[in-house]
Amino acid sequence: MNRSAYYIGEQTFVVEETELVPPEAGQVRIEVAYTGICGTDLHIAHGAMDQRVRVPAVIGHEMSGRIAEVGAGVEGHRVGDPVTVMPLDWCGRCPACRAGHTHICHRLTFVGIDSPGAMQRSWTVPARLLVPLPEGLPLTHAALVEPTAVAVHDVRRSRLVAGEHAVVIGAGPVGLLIGTVARATGAEVTVLELDPRRRELAAEIGLTTVDPGTVDVVGYLHEITGGAGVEVVYEVSGSAAGVRTATDLLAVRGRLVVVAIHPTPREVDLHRIFWRELELIGVRVYEHADYVEAVRLVHEAQVPADRLISRIVPLTEVAQAFEALAAGGDVKVLIDCGGDR
Amino acid sequence: MNRSAYYIGEQTFVVEETELVPPEAGQVRIEVAYTGICGTDLHIAHGAMDQRVRVPAVIGHEMSGRIAEVGAGVEGHRVGDPVTVMPLDWCGRCPACRAGHTHICHRLTFVGIDSPGAMQRSWTVPARLLVPLPEGLPLTHAALVEPTAVAVHDVRRSRLVAGEHAVVIGAGPVGLLIGTVARATGAEVTVLELDPRRRELAAEIGLTTVDPGTVDVVGYLHEITGGAGVEVVYEVSGSAAGVRTATDLLAVRGRLVVVAIHPTPREVDLHRIFWRELELIGVRVYEHADYVEAVRLVHEAQVPADRLISRIVPLTEVAQAFEALAAGGDVKVLIDCGGDR
Repeated sequence: MNRSAYYIGEQTFVVEETELVPPEAGQVRIEVAYTGICGTDLHIAHGAMDQRVRVPAVIGHEMSGRIAEVGAGVEGHRVGDPVTVMPLDWCGRCPACRAGHTHICHRLTFVGIDSPGAMQRSWTVPARLLVPLPEGLPLTHAALVEPTAVAVHDVRRSRLVAGEHAVVIGAGPVGLLIGTVARATGAEVTVLELDPRRRELAAEIGLTTVDPGTVDVVGYLHEITGGAGVEVVYEVSGSAAGVRTATDLLAVRGRLVVVAIHPTPREVDLHRIFWRELELIGVRVYEHADYVEAVRLVHEAQVPADRLISRIVPLTEVAQAFEALAAGGDVKVLIDCGGDR
Repeated sequence: MNRSAYYIGEQTFVVEETELVPPEAGQVRIEVAYTGICGTDLHIAHGAMDQRVRVPAVIGHEMSGRIAEVGAGVEGHRVGDPVTVMPLDWCGRCPACRAGHTHICHRLTFVGIDSPGAMQRSWTVPARLLVPLPEGLPLTHAALVEPTAVAVHDVRRSRLVAGEHAVVIGAGPVGLLIGTVARATGAEVTVLELDPRRRELAAEIGLTTVDPGTVDVVGYLHEITGGAGVEVVYEVSGSAAGVRTATDLLAVRGRLVVVAIHPTPREVDLHRIFWRELELIGVRVYEHADYVEAVRLVHEAQVPADRLISRIVPLTEVAQAFEALAAGGDVKVLIDCGGDR
């Protein structure tokens, strides 16, 4: 039997036993080990995406597991292989796909939002979504590959190189991962965060932190960069103040990566963008190469997975897991989906 | 004797005979043939830059002429050579200069704004600012090299390539030059302009024009690009509506070049920038390579100089030239500075 957590609306989950879904041709069935809860999952559970998510819905897209069954015609994958899933399914025919930007397909299916996800013990998916994991990589850690791929994508789009100075505005899970990946490139990284608990965690994983509530961050960062400003800012706070600070911090030809989702238009200092020839760069999910790099970074322990995973709860307690995350204080909460490992 | 037009404040110019300034070591004295009036010159004449410009001021930075005297130690330039001036003088020591971005020097002197300019018959400048002109290039046309270099820089920063579709929002002189340079790269170009006279001129120089006052430009441009949207938009209108239209028009991974100066922050649709992974690119003046390319484009008549130069007035009538330009209807007005040609 399978066991699935269904989101049924109004912040409510029910866990039910269901039949296993045997893999069709081109599919595999995965025994899911761990599924992380993403900020988007939290939005869904709070009803913010009811127009997009059709209930009852099994959500979840940050996962690890092992292949349990292989459908007809699937090559290169065997029962028992440790895997994760890159949860993007594209049409291959729209203008974005034809231009090679399949991850921004005009008709993108985000698996775990637009189609059933990984908050269940047994998950049947197209084999083309699989990303192999190395043996020896703990499956707890592997559940962080997806958010790490987000960070890898964002850092890659920023063209950050060793020796440059990067600032991350906002130290939630994605901000911490961006700081980690940026540091792994050899850049100097400063994290700005108002919340003392988040600042503390950022410091624990070795990132330099500054409290923008008490420090004149623009003055400080211009001072420590010899008057230049910083080459890259990642705006992960989603706030109007974050956008303003970002343009103020940047050096000539600096790049501002807009990571957080700003639902409404924001005032942007286009005069400073002109005056310093700044760039503002949009980023969305990841491409396959980002996933492969994320697996490497997690496997080589460049991502402090143990420190970022603050709680692991069994699938039967999924509702409590969401409540804990919403209450704050947690970083990354994993659901133990109970799949064979 | 020299003859100079002095801006003395409050939209007033006086033309005076003055002594020639002999070139010091490293300088040359140029007999100025023609000096174009730029939008910035118009701003200065209207008092909008009184905080920056110290009156009495000789302004003007779009020029052509011939070398009349060569100072000690100047190599590679001879009396009689046709030249233009790249009017940027940088410190070479600030963080931007050290990073190789001398055109955005933190202490940039813009010659003709921050120091004496070319609205005079005889102009003495550092030889390092000279850009040689080919014999056979009419000096009227050569006065368009500077604004053409702006367009070359903007198109280069946009990474536009042949086969892409570009939109220019606003068909003033800079917009028309950007359209011209973009077309010279092999791109498909559409110009959006509300003013019928400007649209007519754009059409006369062979650019496709659309009136955004009567056409649903977002629908139209998505339709003619097979639903994709356009790869590059140059925002040259300086309007809030222009910025909004620009983000709406862009294809996945499209680039928005902010050419116009927006003095106050503008609302920008950061959600669409995220959703389509757009880029917003700041641009300021030009680099030396842009100037060299601009000389080539003007020389090869890829820039329709005769059609863009709408009026040539003698230096003694500089005030009337500014009035004519402010009244509208003109494109590029040149001052005939009377230098030997």
